[in-house]
Amino acid sequence: MSKTSLDLGPLPELTGYVLRRAQLVVFQDFFQAFAPFNISPAQFSVLTVIERNPGLTQSQVAAALGIKRTNFVGLLDELERRALAERRQAARDKRSYALYLTAEGAALMRKLKPVLKAHESRMVARIGEAGRDRLIELLREIVGGPSSNGAAVRAAKAPRPPRPGSVAT
Amino acid sequence: MSKTSLDLGPLPELTGYVLRRAQLVVFQDFFQAFAPFNISPAQFSVLTVIERNPGLTQSQVAAALGIKRTNFVGLLDELERRALAERRQAARDKRSYALYLTAEGAALMRKLKPVLKAHESRMVARIGEAGRDRLIELLREIVGGPSSNGAAVRAAKAPRPPRPGSVAT
Repeated sequence: MSKTSLDLGPLPELTGYVLRRAQLVVFQDFFQAFAPFNISPAQFSVLTVIERNPGLTQSQVAAALGIKRTNFVGLLDELERRALAERRQAARDKRSYALYLTAEGAALMRKLKPVLKAHESRMVARIGEAGRDRLIELLREIVGGPSSNGAAVRAAKAPRPPRPGSVAT
Repeated sequence: MSKTSLDLGPLPELTGYVLRRAQLVVFQDFFQAFAPFNISPAQFSVLTVIERNPGLTQSQVAAALGIKRTNFVGLLDELERRALAERRQAARDKRSYALYLTAEGAALMRKLKPVLKAHESRMVARIGEAGRDRLIELLREIVGGPSSNGAAVRAAKAPRPPRPGSVAT
């Protein structure tokens, strides 16, 4: 074939397609940076939420991160197997578990702080501080939906509380 | 618990985290819109590239879309099983296959055009035309990397040609 580039039709103008390509590039950098610690983006986000909000239930953490319950159980099993996080029986409801970091998990999170900072700096290097801020703003508006505007940004910063009845406490 | 919102720590300011949340939201809309046709975003992108560039090899389509070879084979098997695309033995190299849409695949792509347009319109409704254009521009800069700038945008529009030797012709 003599072609040097392909016709991608509508794809390069499609929000979802370009989002996905960019997300894979950013995650690729994350994977490489965190490989020495064997920590994926999903694992990092779960450890972060547990670190910041000790004692939450599995359902609450999963809901806050938009992770499906079934995927979340596997994620947490792995973190528990590696002794980074632990489930403890919740005081109020014997059927649900409260999540905590172990001392090892807390130590790992401290070690990961500069790794995360360096990773994000590489992303900022690509589009500048102002570009990054605008990007995050636009992405939050997409997450928040068309009718919410200001509320959308707040919702992305601090996700809505679990719907009553849907989350064990 | 009396908390009404969780502390997500650095996540809401993290490019990768916000990208991933937004990508999931956009894909969710795509999945719903394309559910009557049982077409995923990945399947749609493969069908689009084959439609626009009939006769490409599997490796070329996979490379253009950044899909891993092993995942791509499964994707294509499914499209072939549903008689939407087909592999034909390539003239020059008997070991490689050239990809084409079937008549059914081409008809489906025509039917999907307005579905795609409506999906993208819903995304534009969330951030406006100017917001969408700026978003795509920023995402392309992320995909292109820090040192390329103008080249980055072109690279995202038309991905680089397959590296010599890495792709069957």
